[in-house]
Amino acid sequence: MIAELICVGTELLMGQVTNTNARFISEQLAPSGIDIYYQTVIGDNSERLKEMILTSLSRSDTVILTGGLGPTDDDLTKETAADVFGYTLDLVPAEWDKIVSYFARSGRIPTENNRKQAMFPRSSIILPNPNGTAPGCIMEKNGKSIILLPGPPRELKPMFLNYVIPYLMRATDHILLSREVRIFGMGESQVTEKLNDLIKYQNNPTIASYALTGELYLRITAKCTSKDEGEMIIAPILKTIRDRLGDVVYSENGLSLAEVCHNALLERKETVAVAESCTGGLLASAFVDLAGSSDYFIEGAVTYSNDAKVRRLGVSQMTLDTVGPVSEQCAKEMAEGLLQHAGTTYALATTGIAGPGGGTDETPVGTVYVSFASRQKTVVKRLNLNGDRNRIRYVTVLNILDIFRRNLCT
Amino acid sequence: MIAELICVGTELLMGQVTNTNARFISEQLAPSGIDIYYQTVIGDNSERLKEMILTSLSRSDTVILTGGLGPTDDDLTKETAADVFGYTLDLVPAEWDKIVSYFARSGRIPTENNRKQAMFPRSSIILPNPNGTAPGCIMEKNGKSIILLPGPPRELKPMFLNYVIPYLMRATDHILLSREVRIFGMGESQVTEKLNDLIKYQNNPTIASYALTGELYLRITAKCTSKDEGEMIIAPILKTIRDRLGDVVYSENGLSLAEVCHNALLERKETVAVAESCTGGLLASAFVDLAGSSDYFIEGAVTYSNDAKVRRLGVSQMTLDTVGPVSEQCAKEMAEGLLQHAGTTYALATTGIAGPGGGTDETPVGTVYVSFASRQKTVVKRLNLNGDRNRIRYVTVLNILDIFRRNLCT
Repeated sequence: MIAELICVGTELLMGQVTNTNARFISEQLAPSGIDIYYQTVIGDNSERLKEMILTSLSRSDTVILTGGLGPTDDDLTKETAADVFGYTLDLVPAEWDKIVSYFARSGRIPTENNRKQAMFPRSSIILPNPNGTAPGCIMEKNGKSIILLPGPPRELKPMFLNYVIPYLMRATDHILLSREVRIFGMGESQVTEKLNDLIKYQNNPTIASYALTGELYLRITAKCTSKDEGEMIIAPILKTIRDRLGDVVYSENGLSLAEVCHNALLERKETVAVAESCTGGLLASAFVDLAGSSDYFIEGAVTYSNDAKVRRLGVSQMTLDTVGPVSEQCAKEMAEGLLQHAGTTYALATTGIAGPGGGTDETPVGTVYVSFASRQKTVVKRLNLNGDRNRIRYVTVLNILDIFRRNLCT
Repeated sequence: MIAELICVGTELLMGQVTNTNARFISEQLAPSGIDIYYQTVIGDNSERLKEMILTSLSRSDTVILTGGLGPTDDDLTKETAADVFGYTLDLVPAEWDKIVSYFARSGRIPTENNRKQAMFPRSSIILPNPNGTAPGCIMEKNGKSIILLPGPPRELKPMFLNYVIPYLMRATDHILLSREVRIFGMGESQVTEKLNDLIKYQNNPTIASYALTGELYLRITAKCTSKDEGEMIIAPILKTIRDRLGDVVYSENGLSLAEVCHNALLERKETVAVAESCTGGLLASAFVDLAGSSDYFIEGAVTYSNDAKVRRLGVSQMTLDTVGPVSEQCAKEMAEGLLQHAGTTYALATTGIAGPGGGTDETPVGTVYVSFASRQKTVVKRLNLNGDRNRIRYVTVLNILDIFRRNLCT
């Protein structure tokens, strides 16, 4: 099957936003054996859009469109697509009711403009959107289909995974089973060198590596007729990868470092508190992002100023005056002070220079100390990180979570 | 002038990398008054690429291609483009010498494959690449041009800014000036209804609305011959928008809510501390994300547990026992307690139910209280938010920042 992607939005043509939807959709389709030969970005212009849809339908089985499902006059993707197929749009009362309730939940009422979001061709498949007011839809004609999805990624992604993938896969006689192996602490070139033969001679399963900020993952995908068969195809490769890479592999099922720690804490019924300087709330947020974290996450202290480090964590003034806040000693006192104060099983701390200012020859921008404390021991590590302010802060969080999961799981 | 962009690379079609080049190039071209109606991504396939270039040349003056200038066999963009124009490629000795020296700098010698990177049509303009081995080039014929750029962003970006922009701008007689008006607290349909006539009859300047999570912005763009003229064209529309929308407009120059607060705090030399329950570090991070925040951001307390609320902020046990942690009273005590403890000019607090669990009939998921405290007053607001856990947390942060900027600026 050949699919084609058209992303609609003048803001994409103007370069105001990055087209992350194109990557997301392509990445999801790649392992399914559905080929994509073209991705097109086009503005909110009905004439050009109509011509583009016709061109795409002439060379592909399915055309996926994103964006232009909003309530305003320049949102015209649905109208144009229906026009191409010669369909008219009718108000679907059930969808209108959903929009009214969506607004009601935040004490608002929809405007007359919103009515067009509840209008669809009679024969179309409507795709629910729990995260916004624009439902998606699938229109079919003569064996071809047009799939319309909302532009905002948080609305598009669940709709694509929950409805579009099953729709596209309904016709195939095999399934694809994937496992995501996540790796922290080894670079992509080193990982692929260690797995060179596996990658070179891959067939079923396939192996692909993807770099994320500060870490990476391997996706192993088996073409199979059942989940059990898929697991059997994947298992030996998984074992080889684990043997060759060792403990830099921190999850084999796509869980993030924060999720690995989260699950371990819930299982062990233990608690944690965090003290942050340069990461400024990012580490606390990594836990609080996850539903259920209230069971173990007791508190976070964003002690950005020296004064707060002394007052909230009991860091000694002497340490700040002699070795300063970006030091092994300060990181140690932060974690140990918080452990005592919060009475948790574990405490984590970060202190460093995220930049752009504040660096010196001895402690340049990117110098960060992270520490882990429990009743039994304290671990402190110095990091020398590259990149801009937000990359340094983000990678600091990954590092302390990696130290945490290693000390939690032993 | 109409330009069009074709990004070549199977890795883009497979979703292995995000197409940041498309955004970069479009963003650079937008203010120059050069229109882009299409961006296309296509794989390393010479037949489809040739057809695509022909289509693009038929509807645009200039076709910009990225990627496929490398030394390997599947790098065929330059060969295909030359073929479209009927040009042959010849070795340019000066370019070959540069490639040899580029390799020499890291103690390597080029392979025979690299020779093709020094081959160009005789009449083309060669674009130097100090950051890699693939020079770009511009081919012209019958008033149309094809511009070839390397795929890696760190090679493409300087080449585009240093050579392509001057090349393209040599012929234009106008520029585009844009202003971004940011809005919090009014939905897109309501905003566009209030500005309906402006949007309907827009010409110069143009007005477009864009939704972000929980907020939105309008982009006003003037076609003009100078910056001053552009400002004069934009000013009356900006005034009308401000008059009709009122104080939901929080910035007219693209600054985010956090940046507006950040700048106001720096200017007033005042300080802030934050206490967070459901937002769990996200509010602290909104400030710490911004370079220079160490001047005013004193501390954050992520008091996720009741115990931490009492211990760190002095919330009364009575409040927790009677009205509970998700209450107006608790939010008030959190901000006031922190203000006293941290000794800052202002304190902000959040407490609520981000879900998915924990909701009741009286306080369903999405119920959040936010509060602002200064020496003069305390403001508490109840929010009823929609969406998943992370949307609720994110929109909570926007709400408290909006309250903050309103009370900071008065």
